Amino acid sequence: MNIAVAQSGGPTCAINASLVGVFKEALKAPDIDAVFGSINGIEGIIKDELIDLRPVIRTNEDMELLRQTPSTVLGSCRYKLPPAEEGGEIYEKIAACFEKHRIEAFFYIGGNDSMDTVDKLSAYLLSIGSGVRVVGIPKTIDNDLPITDHTPGFGSAAKYVAATVQEIIRDSSVYSIESVTIIEIMGRHAGWLTASTCVLRANDEVAPHLIYLPECEFSAEKFLEDVRSMQAKYKAVVVAVSEGVRLPEDSRKSVAVDGFGHEYLSGIGKTLEQLVRNNIGCKVRSVELNVMQRCSSHICSKTDIDEAELIGAEGVKHALSGETGVMMCFRRLSDVPYVMDIVGVGAGQVANKEKFFPLEWINDSHNDVRPEAVRYFLPLIQGEVKISMRNGMPLHYKLK
Amino acid sequence: MNIAVAQSGGPTCAINASLVGVFKEALKAPDIDAVFGSINGIEGIIKDELIDLRPVIRTNEDMELLRQTPSTVLGSCRYKLPPAEEGGEIYEKIAACFEKHRIEAFFYIGGNDSMDTVDKLSAYLLSIGSGVRVVGIPKTIDNDLPITDHTPGFGSAAKYVAATVQEIIRDSSVYSIESVTIIEIMGRHAGWLTASTCVLRANDEVAPHLIYLPECEFSAEKFLEDVRSMQAKYKAVVVAVSEGVRLPEDSRKSVAVDGFGHEYLSGIGKTLEQLVRNNIGCKVRSVELNVMQRCSSHICSKTDIDEAELIGAEGVKHALSGETGVMMCFRRLSDVPYVMDIVGVGAGQVANKEKFFPLEWINDSHNDVRPEAVRYFLPLIQGEVKISMRNGMPLHYKLK
Repeated sequence: MNIAVAQSGGPTCAINASLVGVFKEALKAPDIDAVFGSINGIEGIIKDELIDLRPVIRTNEDMELLRQTPSTVLGSCRYKLPPAEEGGEIYEKIAACFEKHRIEAFFYIGGNDSMDTVDKLSAYLLSIGSGVRVVGIPKTIDNDLPITDHTPGFGSAAKYVAATVQEIIRDSSVYSIESVTIIEIMGRHAGWLTASTCVLRANDEVAPHLIYLPECEFSAEKFLEDVRSMQAKYKAVVVAVSEGVRLPEDSRKSVAVDGFGHEYLSGIGKTLEQLVRNNIGCKVRSVELNVMQRCSSHICSKTDIDEAELIGAEGVKHALSGETGVMMCFRRLSDVPYVMDIVGVGAGQVANKEKFFPLEWINDSHNDVRPEAVRYFLPLIQGEVKISMRNGMPLHYKLK
Repeated sequence: MNIAVAQSGGPTCAINASLVGVFKEALKAPDIDAVFGSINGIEGIIKDELIDLRPVIRTNEDMELLRQTPSTVLGSCRYKLPPAEEGGEIYEKIAACFEKHRIEAFFYIGGNDSMDTVDKLSAYLLSIGSGVRVVGIPKTIDNDLPITDHTPGFGSAAKYVAATVQEIIRDSSVYSIESVTIIEIMGRHAGWLTASTCVLRANDEVAPHLIYLPECEFSAEKFLEDVRSMQAKYKAVVVAVSEGVRLPEDSRKSVAVDGFGHEYLSGIGKTLEQLVRNNIGCKVRSVELNVMQRCSSHICSKTDIDEAELIGAEGVKHALSGETGVMMCFRRLSDVPYVMDIVGVGAGQVANKEKFFPLEWINDSHNDVRPEAVRYFLPLIQGEVKISMRNGMPLHYKLK
């Protein structure tokens, strides 16, 4: 038998590590011959654009480099499968591709939209009596997938954000004058990554002094009041705000809508900067961590990368044991020492759903998170990957 | 005798390493008793806000942490000394502070504005028959100081920018559709940091496909033509642009003017993003590397940090040998192997002057740099500092 693997959705630092996990586990399985990589997610299956991975991932060094290379080496897509009753032709193309290449298991590394694909495709294949198994491997810096304790890619994003926010805190505190620094962090609907800046308290940082998540109501008046009250205590106030936070009076139009109908928001950092400038008048700056928070592999979390590889490998084991239509999930058994295991759950329980930051971990004033959150986040950012360097720069794996 | 040291201007990753260099060399000199740190640059001398550094930098570990801590541990300022004939009272306060604390040498770590202070203050002290020596230690991520081959802080900024642009290149290339990614890099008048992205070619990256510096004329028509011609060859076009690049038709008002009368520009990245959106219409994104490029110590250049410490130590030696009114300079003796030495030059030759990126290293189309530039930049980003971590995050030194 052969297998195929594809990567989908937004890039992360860990998505290639999950590919390595699938690939390496397949090498161990005597039943598996070829491991095909599908170019640009499910689109590669539909268009029959596959590459045989064994001739291109040849050495341990290749696998190590791939583990430390951000983004998706096979490309990605934001393609949404139509319902089976409407998109018969697409499904037939997929089944034909599987049959042509003797593919008996397909691994889809992605977020909640990709799990929709896992759910629909596995149901279709069962309905036509196909034995091809479809297994989802989670991935998203948003950490917003239901059921799983956390998602691969999130820990590395959180580690980058923590290190960078700490450096911005140093940078913001050099002058003798009052200042406000606003850091905009990714998260359209779920505030996990913004909330994770609280880990700095484990290293005795007071800042960020204010943390705003999309899970709570937000108003300009309350924000300015919060900033003023922090200014009474701190010369350089640092604010972490999720990109998804909106002012009730906010009439900004979203600038784009992606293939899943998601609004693409931007600009809350700039909006709050102007609010402070116009109403408080002190030195103010906003900083957008932008795509760096999802691709800064040079400071990835070893825990995250190791787990991403492990969950890819587990996916192969579950497929080989006959499971289909499942997504692999982390279950946390203990915070300290950190212990987790991996189980499969029905992809339909995850598809198109979002897990929000728990309201009980947000303070009463809705401008900070509680210490329980620190305990949750800390294990996910532990450890550093020894990055291979050449000419003073990290080396990336590229398909030849 | 006692000495004093102060830090001025914008933060970098290397300015604390220069402080360590001054401090450590002073410990070796039997003639030097106390090493005072002046809080917020020259303002600390004027206001007599000094701290004795020996009781707060006590161990080798303290010195190591300080070397890896970005920004200025003593704070900074953008205070410009008035001419001596107008600002008699200020100069008298400075001389009085030096006399009160038996300070016989003062080290000012900063950029071209700080060298103006070194120049004026040393001339004043000589004019009143004072024996206090004033020595400038260069520092700026802009690399725009005359005479010195390069400036401490620049190499770390360039290493961060190279690593990050490489990651953004990976991130930008995942989808099957055409895209343009515009990366805005610091440099109001001098394009050194933007030009340094060319080092990626040493690691076989083609991108950035276009590099625009403030040293050249720029027009919207030529830019769009350049982008279109790159799109004929590359699906995901990556552009590096210096914040100081302006459109001739650009009527944007600068949002602020600092204490030295510098305009603070922003927004060329966003402007070019809109140009592409309106005229080409493909997927387009702009990314501002913002303050991260000057404070990301977690990926600092070991060459830069070691040199920053060394040039601080050299400053002490020069002061002890009686020099005053000088700035310490790097002289490059060879690119490969990289060899440099350190000499003192009159601060007046550096003060208020800027060194631009050489026009002969820019291509004829003014949209890229030549290979000579790679040879110049590469030695400056070599080596990694082993960063002390706690709880998965870099540890920073803080004054107790």
